Amino acid sequence: MKKRGFKVSEFEMRMARAQEIMHRRNLDAILVTTPQNIRYFTGFDSQFWESPTRPWFVVVPGEGKPIAVVPEIGAREMERTWVEDVRSWPSPIPEDDGISLLSDVVNSLATKFNTIGAELGREMTLRMPVNDFLKLRTFINRQILDGSPALWEMRMVKTESEIQRIEHICKLASESYQDLPKYLNIGETERDAVRKLRIDLIKRGADSIPFLPAVSGQGGVSQIVCGPSDRKLENGDILFMDTGSTYDGYFCDFDRNFAIGKISDEAMKVHDLLWTATESGIAASVPGMTAKDVWFAMNRVIEEGGVKGNNAGRLGHGVGLQLTEPPSHRPGDKTKLVPNMVITIEPGLEYLPGKMLVHEENIVVTEDGPKLLTIRAPREMPIIT
Amino acid sequence: MKKRGFKVSEFEMRMARAQEIMHRRNLDAILVTTPQNIRYFTGFDSQFWESPTRPWFVVVPGEGKPIAVVPEIGAREMERTWVEDVRSWPSPIPEDDGISLLSDVVNSLATKFNTIGAELGREMTLRMPVNDFLKLRTFINRQILDGSPALWEMRMVKTESEIQRIEHICKLASESYQDLPKYLNIGETERDAVRKLRIDLIKRGADSIPFLPAVSGQGGVSQIVCGPSDRKLENGDILFMDTGSTYDGYFCDFDRNFAIGKISDEAMKVHDLLWTATESGIAASVPGMTAKDVWFAMNRVIEEGGVKGNNAGRLGHGVGLQLTEPPSHRPGDKTKLVPNMVITIEPGLEYLPGKMLVHEENIVVTEDGPKLLTIRAPREMPIIT
Repeated sequence: MKKRGFKVSEFEMRMARAQEIMHRRNLDAILVTTPQNIRYFTGFDSQFWESPTRPWFVVVPGEGKPIAVVPEIGAREMERTWVEDVRSWPSPIPEDDGISLLSDVVNSLATKFNTIGAELGREMTLRMPVNDFLKLRTFINRQILDGSPALWEMRMVKTESEIQRIEHICKLASESYQDLPKYLNIGETERDAVRKLRIDLIKRGADSIPFLPAVSGQGGVSQIVCGPSDRKLENGDILFMDTGSTYDGYFCDFDRNFAIGKISDEAMKVHDLLWTATESGIAASVPGMTAKDVWFAMNRVIEEGGVKGNNAGRLGHGVGLQLTEPPSHRPGDKTKLVPNMVITIEPGLEYLPGKMLVHEENIVVTEDGPKLLTIRAPREMPIIT
Repeated sequence: MKKRGFKVSEFEMRMARAQEIMHRRNLDAILVTTPQNIRYFTGFDSQFWESPTRPWFVVVPGEGKPIAVVPEIGAREMERTWVEDVRSWPSPIPEDDGISLLSDVVNSLATKFNTIGAELGREMTLRMPVNDFLKLRTFINRQILDGSPALWEMRMVKTESEIQRIEHICKLASESYQDLPKYLNIGETERDAVRKLRIDLIKRGADSIPFLPAVSGQGGVSQIVCGPSDRKLENGDILFMDTGSTYDGYFCDFDRNFAIGKISDEAMKVHDLLWTATESGIAASVPGMTAKDVWFAMNRVIEEGGVKGNNAGRLGHGVGLQLTEPPSHRPGDKTKLVPNMVITIEPGLEYLPGKMLVHEENIVVTEDGPKLLTIRAPREMPIIT
């Protein structure tokens, strides 16, 4: 996995599938504005997205290749992708930041359904001022519909090349986690743990590490969304680390737990329960089952263990160009699993107030059953001394 | 600058100013959804934002403290901030992801103007599905206006504590850039340069490095938005590096240029012109001048040098909780500079097709004139051998 970037044939394949889906869903085109969706269709790779000043647009038509409408500062690089039709304007111009140019492009598209999809729905945001979007609605001659169900139908099922990249970053981060006990010691802080793991991930070849929290606590953690803090690791703590690192645009998303010195027997037992729940979730991830079934397979083990779930609202999700993507393993999600979906298996529970444990692995659904992309966490928690 | 986080008095000060601004602008409240705006009012610090699945809301009322409406997974940590009123729901629930709960909060607010502001305008995006926002508009009993002018009026002028943090990360990154020639060599790649600088920044104490491109080329670069690539640094190249690194939530944003071996006399001359344009831009950054004046001060030097500008559409901008913020140093931006604004001074030019050079420093506007936050780039380009 040395080479970054995709062949033109990859984008042609994505477009063919996208256009089939759009046609079936009565969409003449889809307008995309976010880094992930623009990258999916064009391959455009940039850190410049971190600057929210200028909007970028790509129109994915029902026939033909994508059309990019981008700030002048990025036009030259967009022209180096497989996209041929690149329009630009000297952004930033708050009075008309590409809106009239974009309207012209949309209005000149061939029409069949008189519709265009946009990123209006779940797990997507529109990367442009909403006021500009409302203006755009009045400038174009067709109805704007929610394009997110179509986009998720496309992106939820990965291509082989996408899976290779996720697998690469999963392996890399797995090895990084495995080595952590070699260079982290009792008495160091959560922040030290993050700093050391981050450096190790970079040395191994991760492109970026947008997500790397660490949380610690006696026998478990009280939450999993904030951190690291300057809290020192003490005997009896469990150190929870989680990472969404990327390679060539694709995320891994999985955590690991470390015992600091000697942890309580109860924490060890709960950890084993979660390890088993993870096994159960992995086993349930076969074509034909639903996200809900995967949730149930894990939740059953947790409840049989006599403990309560956690406050995450789900026990895993999709992963790809985003850290988290549909589906969600929760009672309300009936998304059917099909081959080449990449998902996390993420059971969690709070066995005592403020003592939470969460496991996580990343897998790909295949005809032959679930295939691990991460190196499975050991059944016994690794120990940091 | 060892301690992260702010005192409650900092948030009280921000709220007092925010409420004065809201009142003057006829807003009963402002609804915020983005990491930066939520952090500005609450201090809530999390990497969990990387997951786009769940929306988060904070209502900033015209009187009293902010009210947080957040997913259950984050409620406990939000309660640890200075915010007292924290409501939560078991997100993700795509059918009603906090919208009815948020509507109840908004509808129960005291009203005077019958309005609420939202992040609808320039350099802001709404971090929630647009469809949910459109639903929200029908659920609440008051008019939703563009809150971005009010939010930018608040955030453009920094507090002393905010400036300290920007200065800290500016110094840290300046020192990192200064040391780069010690550990980067001809023959290494752009990607090596990024990896090494990134590790150095982490070791020095940067919290995150969301933006760190590297681009190289003979005598200049063809673009500044993509990279790094696997291109090897060769004699005569200029290596352009740029970073938006953060400390305690606050960004620096400035670049540096390095000569690889011996560069052409012409490139040296152009570099000196840009260095002078930067001096001119810094000198113009005094209270009472406008963003446009700052642009003019730089552009005059560039044009007198007989070369053309570049395709960035501006020559600098605000910086703070975002890598880029208003104002923009461009002919159309008449924003008046006032003390405690933090801005970048960023002249750039393309002196031959595909040969671009860009300088950048970060300064704070003060009553006593501009104050550098970065360590000023040397007039002669540092050399990597």
